Amino acid sequence: MYAIGERINGMFRSVGAAIREKNPETIQELAKRQLAAGADALDVNVGPAAADPLEAMEWLVRTIREVTDAPLAIDTTKPDVMRRGLEVAGPGSIINSTKGQQEQLDIFIPMAAELQASVITLTIDENGVPRDANGRSEIALRAVASAMEHGLEPDRLMVDAVILPANVAQPTAVQVLEAIRSVRLLSDPPPKTVLGLSNVSQGTTQRPLINRTYLVMALACGLDAAILDVLDTEMMDAMITAELLLNRAVYCDDFLRAYRS
Amino acid sequence: MYAIGERINGMFRSVGAAIREKNPETIQELAKRQLAAGADALDVNVGPAAADPLEAMEWLVRTIREVTDAPLAIDTTKPDVMRRGLEVAGPGSIINSTKGQQEQLDIFIPMAAELQASVITLTIDENGVPRDANGRSEIALRAVASAMEHGLEPDRLMVDAVILPANVAQPTAVQVLEAIRSVRLLSDPPPKTVLGLSNVSQGTTQRPLINRTYLVMALACGLDAAILDVLDTEMMDAMITAELLLNRAVYCDDFLRAYRS
Repeated sequence: MYAIGERINGMFRSVGAAIREKNPETIQELAKRQLAAGADALDVNVGPAAADPLEAMEWLVRTIREVTDAPLAIDTTKPDVMRRGLEVAGPGSIINSTKGQQEQLDIFIPMAAELQASVITLTIDENGVPRDANGRSEIALRAVASAMEHGLEPDRLMVDAVILPANVAQPTAVQVLEAIRSVRLLSDPPPKTVLGLSNVSQGTTQRPLINRTYLVMALACGLDAAILDVLDTEMMDAMITAELLLNRAVYCDDFLRAYRS
Repeated sequence: MYAIGERINGMFRSVGAAIREKNPETIQELAKRQLAAGADALDVNVGPAAADPLEAMEWLVRTIREVTDAPLAIDTTKPDVMRRGLEVAGPGSIINSTKGQQEQLDIFIPMAAELQASVITLTIDENGVPRDANGRSEIALRAVASAMEHGLEPDRLMVDAVILPANVAQPTAVQVLEAIRSVRLLSDPPPKTVLGLSNVSQGTTQRPLINRTYLVMALACGLDAAILDVLDTEMMDAMITAELLLNRAVYCDDFLRAYRS
């Protein structure tokens, strides 16, 4: 599974403070810790409180680039902040994210093609989050068509079927699993599937347990990638074990450590 | 999920000793502990060392029946021991198990119909364990046909797609997940699916982690039942959480305790 570390986000108090105070150590430390814990890419979000998000994103990306060449997922809804982040981060970055209405796709899909990025498309459009798996697939299909039109390889498109918190939208979890299965049939090669995992447990009393259980379920349904807290060791153990059982890593007695190294 | 507690098995040293010494307390205690931990049914296996398996099975079932009316899964390959166990346990019991060759089905499927039992059919036949999901489905289909022929309701048939240890037969785990999905499409109503779970981790260094991860994956693929160690609290937590995310139990902040009570 392609793991995108979620922790460099201005919503976390220490990260928000580091961005305001231009303190590179906190950010760089978090980048290195997440990569050591198994992150393949790092999400980068300046948070809602940044006074100048464009300038904050540029500083954040440059600060991370000083310690790693790992792919960065530029996490903003603002096209100008996105472009700046992608340009500073370089080719192989990830747009996180576009929604599925045509006006949004028309902005971000060409941007991905131009700047050699992948693009996460949320299955949300002008009507909100669809109730079921079919509604999610329909939006995903629109994104696939848009990718083809703009010359973006289908596997550079990452569909996020939008999981909602289990305590307020419990039936959603099953629908998202079904959507993950369906999206893999939309084209050949199919788009990738990704989940913003932590949302499933928002507001619940058992966040780590719900996160890791749902991650394993989604992997069994074919999930390719997730934005998640790679510093949660028990979750990463579950992910590594699921990968083993999916035959994507070879068993050895020390398979947890082997995967991490 | 229908949980069948695996612990009353003569292969465990203390249980083997209790059977030899006709010590009911050890057995009854284990029955009560497993039911309290969430078992819906109890597996009953006299183990390989019983001098007179027929007599041992009768004693074991009577001993358990003194403390509970819960369904019992009579776990033996011997038809005479099976019949005696089912007769003493009463209607609603489970035959654990028959293999899929026709001669075996011709013994155990009519026995299930006659004694109002369910029957676990392993997808193994004269050619051994099939390599892939299709081979497993073919054997399951033979069992469905046999059940129809003998007037056994399809949902009294429980197909066990036979998981093998991940350290020696790693590709099997994916094939079994696919078989679980396929078996659900064989008839309407479909047969139930069940797994002898612990086998997946036999000989590995991370037994509880592999067991609970695979259980969650199988539940995401539609698994109905498992024979497992219900005394493994972390596994039961994972199972309960998966059930919640499959929308089979209603979320409340204390959902782990609510499920158990």
